[in-house]
Amino acid sequence: MSSTYSYKTRELKFVLKEWLPMEDIFSYDRFKEYYSINDIDTLIDQVDKVMKEVVAPTADDGEKTPVHFEDGKVYVPKSFRGLYKYIQENGWGSTNVDEEGEGILPFTVLNTLNEMMNAANPSFNPYVVLTTGAVGLIQSFGNEHVKQLFLPKMFDGTWSGTMCLTESTAGSDVGDILSKAYPTDDPRIFKIKGSKIFITGGDGDHVDNIIHLYLARIEGAAPGTKGISLFVVPKYWVNDDGSLSPNDVETTGIEHKMGLKGSSTAALAVGDNDGCRGWLLGTYDAENQAGQGMAQMFQMMNEERLNTGMFAVSVASNAYWNAAAYCKERIQGRLLTNPKAGRTQIVNHEDVKRMLLLNKATLEACRGIIAKSCYYIDVAHYEKDPDKKRFAAAMVECLTPIAKAYPSDEAWSLICESIQAYGGYGYCEEYPVAQAARDCKIFSIWEGTNFIQSLDLLGRKWGLAKGAAFAAFLKTVEDFIGANQGTAGFEKEFANLNKALASYREIMAAIGKYMAEGKPGLMPTYSRRVLTATAQLYGGYCLLDQALIAKRKAEELGKEHYEYNFYNGKLLSARYYLRNVVPNVWAVEELVKDGDTSVIEAYPEVFDY
Amino acid sequence: MSSTYSYKTRELKFVLKEWLPMEDIFSYDRFKEYYSINDIDTLIDQVDKVMKEVVAPTADDGEKTPVHFEDGKVYVPKSFRGLYKYIQENGWGSTNVDEEGEGILPFTVLNTLNEMMNAANPSFNPYVVLTTGAVGLIQSFGNEHVKQLFLPKMFDGTWSGTMCLTESTAGSDVGDILSKAYPTDDPRIFKIKGSKIFITGGDGDHVDNIIHLYLARIEGAAPGTKGISLFVVPKYWVNDDGSLSPNDVETTGIEHKMGLKGSSTAALAVGDNDGCRGWLLGTYDAENQAGQGMAQMFQMMNEERLNTGMFAVSVASNAYWNAAAYCKERIQGRLLTNPKAGRTQIVNHEDVKRMLLLNKATLEACRGIIAKSCYYIDVAHYEKDPDKKRFAAAMVECLTPIAKAYPSDEAWSLICESIQAYGGYGYCEEYPVAQAARDCKIFSIWEGTNFIQSLDLLGRKWGLAKGAAFAAFLKTVEDFIGANQGTAGFEKEFANLNKALASYREIMAAIGKYMAEGKPGLMPTYSRRVLTATAQLYGGYCLLDQALIAKRKAEELGKEHYEYNFYNGKLLSARYYLRNVVPNVWAVEELVKDGDTSVIEAYPEVFDY
Repeated sequence: MSSTYSYKTRELKFVLKEWLPMEDIFSYDRFKEYYSINDIDTLIDQVDKVMKEVVAPTADDGEKTPVHFEDGKVYVPKSFRGLYKYIQENGWGSTNVDEEGEGILPFTVLNTLNEMMNAANPSFNPYVVLTTGAVGLIQSFGNEHVKQLFLPKMFDGTWSGTMCLTESTAGSDVGDILSKAYPTDDPRIFKIKGSKIFITGGDGDHVDNIIHLYLARIEGAAPGTKGISLFVVPKYWVNDDGSLSPNDVETTGIEHKMGLKGSSTAALAVGDNDGCRGWLLGTYDAENQAGQGMAQMFQMMNEERLNTGMFAVSVASNAYWNAAAYCKERIQGRLLTNPKAGRTQIVNHEDVKRMLLLNKATLEACRGIIAKSCYYIDVAHYEKDPDKKRFAAAMVECLTPIAKAYPSDEAWSLICESIQAYGGYGYCEEYPVAQAARDCKIFSIWEGTNFIQSLDLLGRKWGLAKGAAFAAFLKTVEDFIGANQGTAGFEKEFANLNKALASYREIMAAIGKYMAEGKPGLMPTYSRRVLTATAQLYGGYCLLDQALIAKRKAEELGKEHYEYNFYNGKLLSARYYLRNVVPNVWAVEELVKDGDTSVIEAYPEVFDY
Repeated sequence: MSSTYSYKTRELKFVLKEWLPMEDIFSYDRFKEYYSINDIDTLIDQVDKVMKEVVAPTADDGEKTPVHFEDGKVYVPKSFRGLYKYIQENGWGSTNVDEEGEGILPFTVLNTLNEMMNAANPSFNPYVVLTTGAVGLIQSFGNEHVKQLFLPKMFDGTWSGTMCLTESTAGSDVGDILSKAYPTDDPRIFKIKGSKIFITGGDGDHVDNIIHLYLARIEGAAPGTKGISLFVVPKYWVNDDGSLSPNDVETTGIEHKMGLKGSSTAALAVGDNDGCRGWLLGTYDAENQAGQGMAQMFQMMNEERLNTGMFAVSVASNAYWNAAAYCKERIQGRLLTNPKAGRTQIVNHEDVKRMLLLNKATLEACRGIIAKSCYYIDVAHYEKDPDKKRFAAAMVECLTPIAKAYPSDEAWSLICESIQAYGGYGYCEEYPVAQAARDCKIFSIWEGTNFIQSLDLLGRKWGLAKGAAFAAFLKTVEDFIGANQGTAGFEKEFANLNKALASYREIMAAIGKYMAEGKPGLMPTYSRRVLTATAQLYGGYCLLDQALIAKRKAEELGKEHYEYNFYNGKLLSARYYLRNVVPNVWAVEELVKDGDTSVIEAYPEVFDY
């Protein structure tokens, strides 16, 4: 019973129905015939039911029967095969990106459903979302033949998909991969040779075939990322009649991980016997020795970065809700402020409330950041007005590194507080929080470590379109403050957000000054802390924006209404976050401006001690 | 190979030989005939060798063959029985508190040896140190008969000891325990009835008998902590001829923990068949219905609180040194500041250096805080001058909650950075850092949760001796600043320490004001953050004090000397900590002064969402 699905849907509905302007999304041609905002409740309730009844009962299978590797084969928990088929066949998974399909969901909504699925079984969900991402690449860059070959069986749960980037000598520096591709008589097909590691869902008996979206360098291509191309490399070659033949993709081992024990992480040897072939996606520019692979793969990578943030939120939220329920039941101690009232549920102790409120507020901020990212993805994809489309695309660029790194950094310390709230039981695997910590730890590492995310933010996103994209991003916060800072009851909160915005601009100026002064090492020294400050600024904006809605509703409904506690809780989330978390932005400003160079001066030998 | 002993002893030697005035301790009668400061190197080197050759090879046994429970018996990893005997027989364990014994070590030195032992096998070490604590209680409060009955076999590794406080309904509120004691014909012996949970080392086949130091309430005693007495309750009753008989102490189960899998955590049913007896330690005051148990147990509890801080430091340090070694080997990426130089060891990347330097600096600060606590324990114990003795005892009181809570809070986030430094391998159990995270998580919970520690600090230690103790504690920092703030090259660091001290006094004043204004709930709302600030202030003082020594040595020896990197590294530790960590003290000041009441206003129902 270590993973207990305790998800609460009210907050998810608030985000989609009351906060984000989802009516804009539902008005696009792609959706207007199928859905409206009135369908959100039904959809979420239906998924919640499926999660409780179908997915959650498998949650512990990865812990009880972890993925194992025997005689070259990978066995996933037995329940996963049927579950995978069920999810894909019933439209809760990869068909939601089927451009030909009917009634597909906006990404914003799909992300919410995936959040619930990931909470119900964090070991299982990656098989689904990676297939969704792989399908997206084939749809975007595959020709009709390739689409016909692979998509139907990826949609119906017969096959699954992966992304193959990392090699044992090339992880963060993907431009250094050694995998090679050699031309064959068919210009669409290449012989592939190489090896990959850390491939999530890289093998398993949950499906009949694994479709790898595989980065390799065509013979003669340029070094670095420029020369990389993207191939569809199936574990079993798909013949024209639909039958399968071996394709010389061998699993050489799996990782024994701290968590996510039902999710396979495979090492692959590809083409060791000269028998592996793959379909090239897009084209190769032989004259310039240039492949399209990195740019193509970034479509999936950005999607998985957002998914990673969402994974972190879902695992930490599930831990928080379990902890909250436990603290409401567990009796221990007396209130410091009223000891004579006798023993009390621990939820009444100040530090327990602080731990829970910190979780609630931070997770709502993270969910807000991710939801905004998803919303802008939908706008960027479906909007026809070029200005709106461009603006939304710019917001996606700015938000992606934050949405990946901030939740995956915070999850570790938030789950720490959930464990702490359980006391000694939190350390016991019979309770669900220890596993949550073990499951979540990979999220700050995979899909580009959080250092890579911070370099993307400061090194690339700050300067995008000569700085115009990020200026527009900050202006959304500035405009919000300008329009609402007079709101009664939120004076201190708006003052803090305003101060954080000013601080943030000071941070940018200080980093800019270091670069101009020839001190470029200070940027990566501070970049992770600056990324956190960015997220706290934007998260503060999201929570305060939500609080304005919640305040109106709470006043309108009154204390006796059954929804009052929900709205009042949103007010407390915003207050806690703006007054206890957001001040970190000016703390970071002070650190950045100090410009301490101890990190830069440190050299390998000092770490011998 | 998941737990790899990679301890570095140079820092340990620095603390004992170059920083703390250990010559004061060695000059006490108890030690002067046996040891001098010149023996430190030999002692540490010898222990290091024993750890490498004898203890470290068993490190993985707890992971491979976790403690298990079968037919009422608890089986620990097979190697632990011989290892326990070896450690105890050879004088590395509990004999070091044998007041009759020759050549026992000062607590400060013993703590250092235990730090190494804990790093070598964190699952094994608790069996030893808890026996040491139990022995200490029997020595302090047992009569000669009880001492003769139990101590020899606890010293020679035949039996081990535990502390039995927690019950299923009483953990943090130990005053609510239900265990009862009933008089027998022998006034020294009571019948015991009750149950205990979470008993570390509570059962196991590593020894022939387990000696429980057991809290229970004598029939008719007052409720709360006042009525509690302390008993020696052996698993097997020790007859006068030394033979053993069953004593109705049954193990009902063990916990399946996130880590420390070789350390047993037992639930005990005591006296269910009316057959359990225990020896009362000290006396029971029937007239006032008052026991001495809580005051007595605090001797062991304070010792274990310090040990807990030391456990956290040792597990996190071992993870840090493993990560540092990995980062010096692993090649990945190019330097942002010099990409043309080609691929580089990841230790050269700024964020990797930042993660390692944060670990190094924080762990050195934590070790400094613990070492100071140990030093003052020795002075308080052995010093004859009553003023010095009283001062040292006051310092121990002030430092204990900090020394327990700060390292055990920090270990979780520091090991997170060590995992991050390993990249994807950090998530794999074949590497030593994932286990370090799993092992360390209990330390913030047991021996009084870190919230309890923070209440002890703000609620009790701040006001001890009408505030004189804590004033003296702060004055050590103030005097240090006054005497050294002109030191060239440390202007900013001293300014920060000074600012932090002023901020800290503002924090105390603000909390005092809230109490006076009838807002007592704000104290526990902020207490954990204030405890962290206290540790950062004192840790900053320790590191800067060490840096002054290191600076002189580095200048004296010059860059070519083989010790230069060690001393220069100490300078960088101090700089990093004072300029990147200590500023949190005034960040906490700002939060405390804001006095946000969202936590106080939160009520159970808001956590339904």
